[in-house]
Amino acid sequence: MGDADGRTVVMCVDYSPTRAEMHEVDDVAEFFSHRRPAWSRVRWIHVAGLQEPGAVQRLAEKYELHPLTMEDVLSGTQRPKVDAFGGGESGMNARLFVTTRALEIQDGRLRSEQISIFLGHNTVLSFEEGPTSQWHQVRQRLMAEGSHLRTADASYLVYAMLDTVVDGAFPILDHFDGGLEELETAVLEHANPAVLTSIQDLKRQFALFRSSVWPMREVVAALRRDPHECMSETTKVYLGDLYDHIVQVIEIIETYRERASDLTESYRSAVSFRTNEVMKLLTVIGTIFIPLTFFAGVYGMNFRHFPELELAWAYPAFWLISLVVAGLMVVFFRRRGWF
Amino acid sequence: MGDADGRTVVMCVDYSPTRAEMHEVDDVAEFFSHRRPAWSRVRWIHVAGLQEPGAVQRLAEKYELHPLTMEDVLSGTQRPKVDAFGGGESGMNARLFVTTRALEIQDGRLRSEQISIFLGHNTVLSFEEGPTSQWHQVRQRLMAEGSHLRTADASYLVYAMLDTVVDGAFPILDHFDGGLEELETAVLEHANPAVLTSIQDLKRQFALFRSSVWPMREVVAALRRDPHECMSETTKVYLGDLYDHIVQVIEIIETYRERASDLTESYRSAVSFRTNEVMKLLTVIGTIFIPLTFFAGVYGMNFRHFPELELAWAYPAFWLISLVVAGLMVVFFRRRGWF
Amino acid sequence: MGDADGRTVVMCVDYSPTRAEMHEVDDVAEFFSHRRPAWSRVRWIHVAGLQEPGAVQRLAEKYELHPLTMEDVLSGTQRPKVDAFGGGESGMNARLFVTTRALEIQDGRLRSEQISIFLGHNTVLSFEEGPTSQWHQVRQRLMAEGSHLRTADASYLVYAMLDTVVDGAFPILDHFDGGLEELETAVLEHANPAVLTSIQDLKRQFALFRSSVWPMREVVAALRRDPHECMSETTKVYLGDLYDHIVQVIEIIETYRERASDLTESYRSAVSFRTNEVMKLLTVIGTIFIPLTFFAGVYGMNFRHFPELELAWAYPAFWLISLVVAGLMVVFFRRRGWF
Amino acid sequence: MGDADGRTVVMCVDYSPTRAEMHEVDDVAEFFSHRRPAWSRVRWIHVAGLQEPGAVQRLAEKYELHPLTMEDVLSGTQRPKVDAFGGGESGMNARLFVTTRALEIQDGRLRSEQISIFLGHNTVLSFEEGPTSQWHQVRQRLMAEGSHLRTADASYLVYAMLDTVVDGAFPILDHFDGGLEELETAVLEHANPAVLTSIQDLKRQFALFRSSVWPMREVVAALRRDPHECMSETTKVYLGDLYDHIVQVIEIIETYRERASDLTESYRSAVSFRTNEVMKLLTVIGTIFIPLTFFAGVYGMNFRHFPELELAWAYPAFWLISLVVAGLMVVFFRRRGWF
Amino acid sequence: MGDADGRTVVMCVDYSPTRAEMHEVDDVAEFFSHRRPAWSRVRWIHVAGLQEPGAVQRLAEKYELHPLTMEDVLSGTQRPKVDAFGGGESGMNARLFVTTRALEIQDGRLRSEQISIFLGHNTVLSFEEGPTSQWHQVRQRLMAEGSHLRTADASYLVYAMLDTVVDGAFPILDHFDGGLEELETAVLEHANPAVLTSIQDLKRQFALFRSSVWPMREVVAALRRDPHECMSETTKVYLGDLYDHIVQVIEIIETYRERASDLTESYRSAVSFRTNEVMKLLTVIGTIFIPLTFFAGVYGMNFRHFPELELAWAYPAFWLISLVVAGLMVVFFRRRGWF
Repeated sequence: MGDADGRTVVMCVDYSPTRAEMHEVDDVAEFFSHRRPAWSRVRWIHVAGLQEPGAVQRLAEKYELHPLTMEDVLSGTQRPKVDAFGGGESGMNARLFVTTRALEIQDGRLRSEQISIFLGHNTVLSFEEGPTSQWHQVRQRLMAEGSHLRTADASYLVYAMLDTVVDGAFPILDHFDGGLEELETAVLEHANPAVLTSIQDLKRQFALFRSSVWPMREVVAALRRDPHECMSETTKVYLGDLYDHIVQVIEIIETYRERASDLTESYRSAVSFRTNEVMKLLTVIGTIFIPLTFFAGVYGMNFRHFPELELAWAYPAFWLISLVVAGLMVVFFRRRGWF
Repeated sequence: MGDADGRTVVMCVDYSPTRAEMHEVDDVAEFFSHRRPAWSRVRWIHVAGLQEPGAVQRLAEKYELHPLTMEDVLSGTQRPKVDAFGGGESGMNARLFVTTRALEIQDGRLRSEQISIFLGHNTVLSFEEGPTSQWHQVRQRLMAEGSHLRTADASYLVYAMLDTVVDGAFPILDHFDGGLEELETAVLEHANPAVLTSIQDLKRQFALFRSSVWPMREVVAALRRDPHECMSETTKVYLGDLYDHIVQVIEIIETYRERASDLTESYRSAVSFRTNEVMKLLTVIGTIFIPLTFFAGVYGMNFRHFPELELAWAYPAFWLISLVVAGLMVVFFRRRGWF
Repeated sequence: MGDADGRTVVMCVDYSPTRAEMHEVDDVAEFFSHRRPAWSRVRWIHVAGLQEPGAVQRLAEKYELHPLTMEDVLSGTQRPKVDAFGGGESGMNARLFVTTRALEIQDGRLRSEQISIFLGHNTVLSFEEGPTSQWHQVRQRLMAEGSHLRTADASYLVYAMLDTVVDGAFPILDHFDGGLEELETAVLEHANPAVLTSIQDLKRQFALFRSSVWPMREVVAALRRDPHECMSETTKVYLGDLYDHIVQVIEIIETYRERASDLTESYRSAVSFRTNEVMKLLTVIGTIFIPLTFFAGVYGMNFRHFPELELAWAYPAFWLISLVVAGLMVVFFRRRGWF
Repeated sequence: MGDADGRTVVMCVDYSPTRAEMHEVDDVAEFFSHRRPAWSRVRWIHVAGLQEPGAVQRLAEKYELHPLTMEDVLSGTQRPKVDAFGGGESGMNARLFVTTRALEIQDGRLRSEQISIFLGHNTVLSFEEGPTSQWHQVRQRLMAEGSHLRTADASYLVYAMLDTVVDGAFPILDHFDGGLEELETAVLEHANPAVLTSIQDLKRQFALFRSSVWPMREVVAALRRDPHECMSETTKVYLGDLYDHIVQVIEIIETYRERASDLTESYRSAVSFRTNEVMKLLTVIGTIFIPLTFFAGVYGMNFRHFPELELAWAYPAFWLISLVVAGLMVVFFRRRGWF
Repeated sequence: MGDADGRTVVMCVDYSPTRAEMHEVDDVAEFFSHRRPAWSRVRWIHVAGLQEPGAVQRLAEKYELHPLTMEDVLSGTQRPKVDAFGGGESGMNARLFVTTRALEIQDGRLRSEQISIFLGHNTVLSFEEGPTSQWHQVRQRLMAEGSHLRTADASYLVYAMLDTVVDGAFPILDHFDGGLEELETAVLEHANPAVLTSIQDLKRQFALFRSSVWPMREVVAALRRDPHECMSETTKVYLGDLYDHIVQVIEIIETYRERASDLTESYRSAVSFRTNEVMKLLTVIGTIFIPLTFFAGVYGMNFRHFPELELAWAYPAFWLISLVVAGLMVVFFRRRGWF
C-alpha cells in the first residue's frame, strides 16, 4: 500500500472477533474528531510514506508519543530496538515502541527500510518509510471472516506484523543462495578481478543483512522476556517461535558468509592454479625447443673445419635426433602429469 | 521402521518392568477408543513418516499438543530445542517437547532428519520424518526380558532415544576422518581445483554437522538443569553422561575443522610449490642453453674477417667450451639443490 | 573558541529558563570573588587550552577537584571514562567526572583531543586541550530565547555536549567512506605497494577512531545505568538515544574495517592477477615464436646434403607453414580465453 | 608400576603420620575379607591396567561406585571432569570422582592416557589404563619417613597425584619447543611440502595437548570452588597453586600455537621468496643474452647487400658491443640488488 | 640497588610523616633482635637478589609467610597474581601477597623479572630476583622531606611500587614503536626472509610483553575490588588510576600487534610485487626480441631461391621493420604502465 507519488497514506483498520472495517484516512484532523466505534476491540493505524510531517505530527500528539521516539521514527536509519513506556492517564498510557528493518531485494540489491510500531492496550500504530506492501497480507487476513488474528489482542497483531517481516527474509536468503551458486560456477570458469569484486559485493550485502537481522533477535528476546502490560502471555509463546526463526535466519547467513570466504579462497586458488598452468605450457615449449634450437644453431655455424657438414646422412640424422629428444621430453612431462 | 512407500507408520509399545507389548496401529481413531491396558506403566507411540496429516492430527488432539509445537514437528527444519509445558487436567498435562536432528551418511553425504519427542508422565510420543530405523535397537532392548530400560520411567526412555541419536554421530565422525585422510593424500599427489572443491564441500558438511550437534548440547543441558515433573533425578545423572558425549563430539568436529583449514593451506602450498618446481626446470634449461645458443649464433655470423672460423680446432673447441659451461651450470644448480 | 596563540580562555555562561548570559573570564581569582547571580540556575565554566596551569589550578581548588582527576584532565591521553564522586559539605559536593575524546579530521588525518567535564548539581565545568570550537553551537543554542536546553537542568547540558561530540563522528565516517572508495578504485587501476601502505594507514586510523569511540559506549552506558544525584531521569532517556548513536557509529566503523581487509585481499589478488596476465603474454609470444625460430634455425644449417634448400618453393612453403602454425596457436589461445 | 604383560596390577598403600605399608594385592576378594589395619589413616588402592574386569568390578562393588562412572573409568576416552557424589551409609559414602588425562611423549609422539581417581573420607581409589609409572614417585614420598604427604589427609594425596600429572606436562612442552626450533631452522634451509606436513603434524599434537589440559583447568577450579566434605581447606590452598601451573601450561601452549602458525607463514614466504630468486636468475640470463642472440642472428643473415659484413673491424666491434651491453646489464641488475 | 656479584642485599626503610631512615641490613638474624623504632609508622624491607636462601628464609619465618607463597617468590616464573591471607595472632596477621613482573629492554630484547610484595598493616616486604634498581626512585621520594608518600599508609607504598613498574612499560612501548618503524621501512626496501624473521621475533616479544601485563590488570582490579583490611580506601582511588594506565598499555600493545600483522602482509605483498616486476622485465625483453630474433633467423636461412636476399634495400628495410616493431611494443607496454 501507500502511494507511488510519495504521498503519505494513512490506513485505519478497526476489528473485533466478529467484525472488521478498513478505510483510508484522508484528513487526520477530521478523523480524530470522531470517536472509535464501540464494537472495535483493536484499532490499527498504519502510515505509509513519511513525507507529510503534518499527518505524522498529529498522530504523535493524539497518542502522546515521546519526541525522541518520533525522531527515531522519522530518522530512517534507526537500529532495531524496543523501548517500553508506561504510566499517564490517557487512553493509550502504557506503550511498547518497536522499531525494526524490513528487507527487500530491489534490482538485485538488498535494500532495508525502517519500520516502527507502537503498541498500546488496544491500539497499534505503525509507520513505514516507503510505499511497500509489507503488511498487505496481514490486512487481508484481518478482513477474512473467522481468522485467528481477529480473535486475538493487539499484541498478537504486532507479532503477526513482525512475523511477516521475518518471513520476508527467507526469499532474500534464497536470492543470496542463487548469487553464491552463480559465483561458485564463475570462479571455476573465469577467475578475474570482476568476479572478486562481485564476491566482495555479496559479502557486503550479507553484512548489511546481518546487521539488520541481528538486533531483531534482541528485540524479540526483549519483547518475550520483559513483562509489559500490553504484551499478553499468549503472544509471548508465539514470539518464542519467532525468535527461533530469527536464529535460523542468522545461522543461515553465517553459513553464507563462510561460503563467501571459501569463494575468495577458491578465487585466489584459481588464479594461482592458472598461473601454474600457464607456466607449465611455457616450460614445456621452452624445454623442448630451446635445446633443439641450440642444435640447429650449432650446424648453422660457419667453421671451415666442420666434419659433420659433409656427411650425407647428417641432415636426416639431425631430424631423427631432434624428434627422439622431443619425444622423450613429451614422455617425461606426461609422466609428471603436466598435460 | 516406517514404510518405504512413504506411508505413515504408527507403532505403539506398552511396557512395565515385567511385561512389554508392541504393535502397529492401523487406525488411529479406533486405537484411541480402547483404554490403555492396566499393566502398562509407560506407553510409547512412535510415528514414522509425516505424510499423512490425518494420523498426526488425531494424536495432537488426543494429547492436546500446542499448535505451534505441531508446526515445529511438521516443519522438518526446526533447530534442536526443548520446550516445557505444564498444567491442565488431562492425563498428560505436564509435557516436555524435545526436537533434535538425527544425522546419517547417505550416498557419501551428510543428511539430517528432524526428530521430535513429547514426554509426559508416563507417555512418550515421537515423530520422525523418514522411514529410518533410528530406534529399532531401543525397541529391541524394550522387548528383551529384564532390560534396565523396562524398569525405568518414561524420561529414561527419552534419554535412551537421545543417546541413540548421539551415538549415531560417531560413525559419521569416522566417515569424515576417512574423507580427510583421503584428501590429505590427494593434496600431496595432485593439487587441482577439484581437490579444493572437495575440501570446501567437506567443510560445508562439517558446518552442517556442527550446526545440528551444537544446539543439542543446549537441549541436554536444559533437560538436566531445569526441573520438570516428568524428568526424574535418576535420568538426569544419565543426561550428564550424554552431555559429556555431545561435548566430545563437538570437540572432535572442531579438530576436523582445523584439519580442513590446514588442508586448504596444504593445497595452496602444494600449488605454489609446484609452480616453483616448474619455474626451476625452465630456469635450468634456459640458463644452460640460452648462452650456448648465443655462442652458436656468434659463429653463424657471416663476417668476412672472422679469424676463428679458419682455425682447424675451432669446432671441437666450441663443443668443449659448451660442455664445460653446461657442466659448471649443472654443478651450480645441484649445489643450490635445484635438482 | 579559545585562543589561537595558545592562551587559556575561560568562558562562563549562566542561564535559567528565562535568561542567559555569557562572558569571558579574564582574571579567575577576581571572578570567584563575586557571587553567582541569584537568577542563574546553571553555571557552565568552559576552559579552552590548558597551557596556563594557574587558571586551571584555581578552578580545581574552588570546586575541590581530586588531584588524580586533575592529572587526568591535564594528561591529554586519558581513555574515555566516567568517575562518580559524592559527599562533602561544599556547594558542589556530589560530582560526576566524564572524560572523552573529540575527533576531528585535520589535513586528511584523524586527530583526537581530550575533553573533560565535571557535572555538579547546577554547575558544569569543562576543559578542552586546544582552541577548537566543539561547543560553539551549544552556546548559541543556550543564548537563543526559548531553547529546550535552557529550561533543562545541568545534566542535560552535559548530554548536549556529549551529543555534539558524537555527532562530530559522522562527518569523519563520511571522510573515511570517501577514502575507502578512492582506494577501491586505486586497487583496480594500479596495485602497487604505495596503495597497500595507504590501505594500512587507513586501517590504523580506523583503529584509532574505534579505540576512541568504543570506551564512550561504556561511558554513556554507565551514566545511564548508575544512579547519581546530579543525573536526572529525564536526561537518562536522552542518554539512551545517545547510546544508540554510539552503537551505530561503532557498527559503521566495523563494516569499514571489513571493507579495508577486503581491500587488502583485492590488492593481493590484483597483483597476482597481473602476474598471471604478464605470464600469459610471455607464454603466448614464447609458444608462438620459439618453434618458428627453431624452424628458421634448421634451414640456416650449413649441411652440404640438404635437399629442401634446393627446392624452388621451399621458401614460400616455410612462410606458409609458419603462418599456419602461428594461426593455429592464436586460435588455441583464444579458445582458452587468454586474450 | 603395573605389568608389561597387560595384567592388571592392584597396589594398596596404608599410611598414617608415623607408619606406611605398601603391598601388591593378588586376590581382590581375599583382600577385602580382611579389615583395614587400625593404625591406617588413609588407604590408597591403585589399579594399573584395566584388562581384568573382574578385579575392577569387585572394587566397584565394594566401594559402591555408580555404574556410569565405572563406564567412564573403563572407556579410556573420557574428557577430564569432576563429579561429586554424597550420602549413603557405607564407610565411603561421600565421594569425589576425578578423571583426567596423563600425557607422555612416546616415540616422538604425544600420547594421552586416562586416569581416574575416587576420593572418599580416608580412601583413595585410582585407575590407570596402561602400565606407566606416573605415581611411582608419589609412593616413594609416602614411604619416606616424615614426609609432609604422610601427615596430610586423603585429599592432599589426590592433590599430589594431580600435581604429578601437571608437572609431567613441562618436559612435553620442552619437547615441543625443540620440535618448533628444529622446524624453524628447516623452513629457512629447505622449504618443501614435507616440512609443511611436519608443521601441521606438530599443530595437531598441540591441539591434542591443549584439549587434554584445558578441561583440567575446569577440574581443578571446580575442586577448589565447590565445597565437599572430602576436600579439606588446606588442600584447597595447594589446588590454587596447581591451578596457576595449569594456566601457565595453557599460556605456553598458546604461544607455541602462535609460533606454529608463524612457521606456516615462514614456510609460505620461503617458497615464494625462492620462486622470486629463481625468476630473477632466469630474467638476468634472459635479459642479457636474448638481445645479444638477436644481434648474432642479424649478422648471420644472408643478404647480399650487407655493408657491415665486409668491414675488417666488424667482428671485434660485435664482441666489444656485446660485452658493453652485458656489462651495463650486470651493473643495472646489481643496482637493483638482484645479485 | 642489589649487588652485581649476585649477593643478596636487604634494605630496610622506616618512615613516618616527619622522619625517614634507610639502612642496609647485613645480618638478618641480628636485625630482628632489635625492636622496630617507636616513631616508625611503616617499615619496608626490600630483598634484591634471591641467591642466599638463608636471609629469605629468616624473613619468611619472622613474618610467617605461607610455604607455597615463598615457593612462588623463589620460582621466578610466577604469573602475576594477588593472594589475600588473614587471621593469626602475630603483629602482621592479615597480609596481601602480590606478585608481578617488571619488564626491561636489555641488549635490545625484552626481559621480565619477577617481583613479589607482601603488604601487612604497617609493613611491606618486597623481593626481586636481580640487582635492578626498579624502586630506587621510590626510596628517594620516601627520603625527601614532605613527600606525599611519607604521609600515606603502607598500602599507598605498594601502589607507588606498582605504579613504578607500570610506568616502566612506556619506554618499552617506545622501543617497540621504533622497532616497528624500522621494519616498516625495511620491508619496503628489501623484503628478504631475514626481515620476516625479525617481524616474527618482534611479535613474539609483543606476546611476552602482553602475557606479563595482561594478568597485572586482573591483579590491580582485584586489589581495588576485594576489601582487605590492609588496603585503605584512599589507595583504592589511586589503584583505579593505575588500572586505567594498564588498560592503556594493553590497548597500545594490541595496536602494535595489529601493525606487526600488517607488516607480515606488507612483506608478503612486497615479495609478490617484486616477482611481478621481475616477470614484467622478462616479458618485455622476451616480447620485443623473440619475434625479432625469429626474423633474423629467417633471413639466415640458406634456401637457394630466396628473392629478398638479392634486394639492395632488404638489409636497411630489416632494421627499419625491427625498430618499428620494437617501438610499437615499447609504446604498448608503456600504455599498460609496465615501465
